Amino acid sequence: MKHTYFTPGPAELYPTFARHLQTAMDEQIGSISHRSQRFRDIYKFTDEQLRTLLNIPATHGIFFTGSASEVWERVLFNCVEHESFHLVNGSFSRKFFDYASSLHKYAHVLEKPFGEGFDVADIEVPEYAELVCLTHNETSSGVQMRPADMHKLKRKYPKKLFVVDMVSSAPHPNLDYSLIDSAFFSVQKAFGMPAGLGVWIANQACLAKAERLQKYDSITTGAHHTLPTLWKHYQTYETPATPNVLFIYLLGKIAEDFNRIGIDVIRKQTEEKARMIYKFLEQSNGFHPSVGEERHRSQTVLVATTKHPADVLANAKQAGMIVGSGYGKFKDSQIRIANFPAVSPEQVQSLLTVLGK
Amino acid sequence: MKHTYFTPGPAELYPTFARHLQTAMDEQIGSISHRSQRFRDIYKFTDEQLRTLLNIPATHGIFFTGSASEVWERVLFNCVEHESFHLVNGSFSRKFFDYASSLHKYAHVLEKPFGEGFDVADIEVPEYAELVCLTHNETSSGVQMRPADMHKLKRKYPKKLFVVDMVSSAPHPNLDYSLIDSAFFSVQKAFGMPAGLGVWIANQACLAKAERLQKYDSITTGAHHTLPTLWKHYQTYETPATPNVLFIYLLGKIAEDFNRIGIDVIRKQTEEKARMIYKFLEQSNGFHPSVGEERHRSQTVLVATTKHPADVLANAKQAGMIVGSGYGKFKDSQIRIANFPAVSPEQVQSLLTVLGK
Repeated sequence: MKHTYFTPGPAELYPTFARHLQTAMDEQIGSISHRSQRFRDIYKFTDEQLRTLLNIPATHGIFFTGSASEVWERVLFNCVEHESFHLVNGSFSRKFFDYASSLHKYAHVLEKPFGEGFDVADIEVPEYAELVCLTHNETSSGVQMRPADMHKLKRKYPKKLFVVDMVSSAPHPNLDYSLIDSAFFSVQKAFGMPAGLGVWIANQACLAKAERLQKYDSITTGAHHTLPTLWKHYQTYETPATPNVLFIYLLGKIAEDFNRIGIDVIRKQTEEKARMIYKFLEQSNGFHPSVGEERHRSQTVLVATTKHPADVLANAKQAGMIVGSGYGKFKDSQIRIANFPAVSPEQVQSLLTVLGK
Repeated sequence: MKHTYFTPGPAELYPTFARHLQTAMDEQIGSISHRSQRFRDIYKFTDEQLRTLLNIPATHGIFFTGSASEVWERVLFNCVEHESFHLVNGSFSRKFFDYASSLHKYAHVLEKPFGEGFDVADIEVPEYAELVCLTHNETSSGVQMRPADMHKLKRKYPKKLFVVDMVSSAPHPNLDYSLIDSAFFSVQKAFGMPAGLGVWIANQACLAKAERLQKYDSITTGAHHTLPTLWKHYQTYETPATPNVLFIYLLGKIAEDFNRIGIDVIRKQTEEKARMIYKFLEQSNGFHPSVGEERHRSQTVLVATTKHPADVLANAKQAGMIVGSGYGKFKDSQIRIANFPAVSPEQVQSLLTVLGK
């Protein structure tokens, strides 16, 4: 029996995924050289589709890694000499912070309790922080930070580099890349693909910083997927090492599908489905939204508090729907419902009907 | 028109790949959680199949990365405090060495001209080198180092850690893991899969070294895919970050297919096909093997010198066969023929017939 996955990633595959995969197999994309014109055309196509979808200007390059977790490390290696600053309000923003500590960066942190979000008024960026690390959508707690707040914060600290983790929300957040220096996501969330590819967007200010840091003997910017090497190969739509060619192809095709629908429509559909779910959670007896403040509630990973989450998950599964468990110790009190483009309003309605029983 | 890929990777997909991919799609492997029992079963299965295939003992863990290039960096981060030692005789062994320099390790090098190989008698390992970095199969030049020589070298320097890059030859080299501390490969070569997954084998001596280095403030072992974190999650067949679940599943299935045939048979078939090709190269007027010494000639990536390689590639393509170009500046004088399990003796014979025209 086929299930519908409402899990926060890996998640339901986008409906067109299987068709694109079949085309890729027919065209032997898995065998082509990453030094061939065919690959350069694929990289260029995916780059163009992502640029259109996310409104990324020519100041920013688009690079591929093995995962978004890898990008945490790469952006810290390449853009931080001494100090980074992290807004932490859940397990993934904390991991980003932990990566900085592992790299022996002086990592400042502003932390909120699990389930609470950040407003720009809360935030003072430490004087010597070089990189401000923001998490648009905290996958563990279902808290979002509003892009408008991110933009305001950057305007207040224009000389610092800003990086946005949008792993479990892209392409939903409408980021202004004239302000945001870098952002990244992975494909197994809202793009409806299997895991195995990270996408890293970074601008020339990040590159300049990385080039400067590479000259210092006292620190390392890493050896694999350094920003200067990625950028150099990007000039001809190549990659320094053999990338996940197949997934880069598939990402381009799904981004093209999104562009055909239109990003405004995709965002509106996401928000409408989120409204349906939050309305249900607020009106139901058995559930309530775990995030108190409405303005901080995620549109893409919705977290609900409930008394017997294991039973809820089991009942949903019996009805053919896989819902995400609460993160870590919140397994016993929460569930997570992913609201990605791969699930239709009708499928969301079916889920709510089952949850309401 | 479908082509047969004799390229050194990405390469021809293994004949069973499409069927396993279809099963994976039917079973929704692309959507399952990497924290589920289903994933742990997949990791365990792939681990067991690789252990059987490569004769890997319980002293060694098997880990997954985004690529083998990533492993170059990880093994240097985790196993070298100050000094590494590299045998370099082509572009890939040189990149491994370059990675060490980028990480500010003191990297010793013993270099041979392109197309020449190493014998154990040639090699003196510097006194303070902590990690000896060997490349079993140099993909750029088609030179192999014999496992027997690697084992002898380790016996001569038992206290040093030995790592073997077997990217473009595994599962062919029969390594003795009671001597070899670490080895790695990527799946787009002899395993006949699309690129996007690296496999890292490392033993407890590597782990102990990484755990020691992690305590030092003066160096970093990286943050992503550190050996201690990989190992910790491996205890329950999990991974620190979301891995390429689909490819781990597919690798397990192909390794199982290899085990059904038997590794001895796979190795023998590879050697028989290599013999066919080298015999052709030696007897033909238009080609000769680029590697002079027979004992250094690769069994899996065979390099031939010829006058008009571009014409050779074009003719082969017209006949439905894609042959690899010479690496880098050797494009103008060499071709590379990959001899992986995905191509049959009959397909090799067809290629030789076309090349002979």
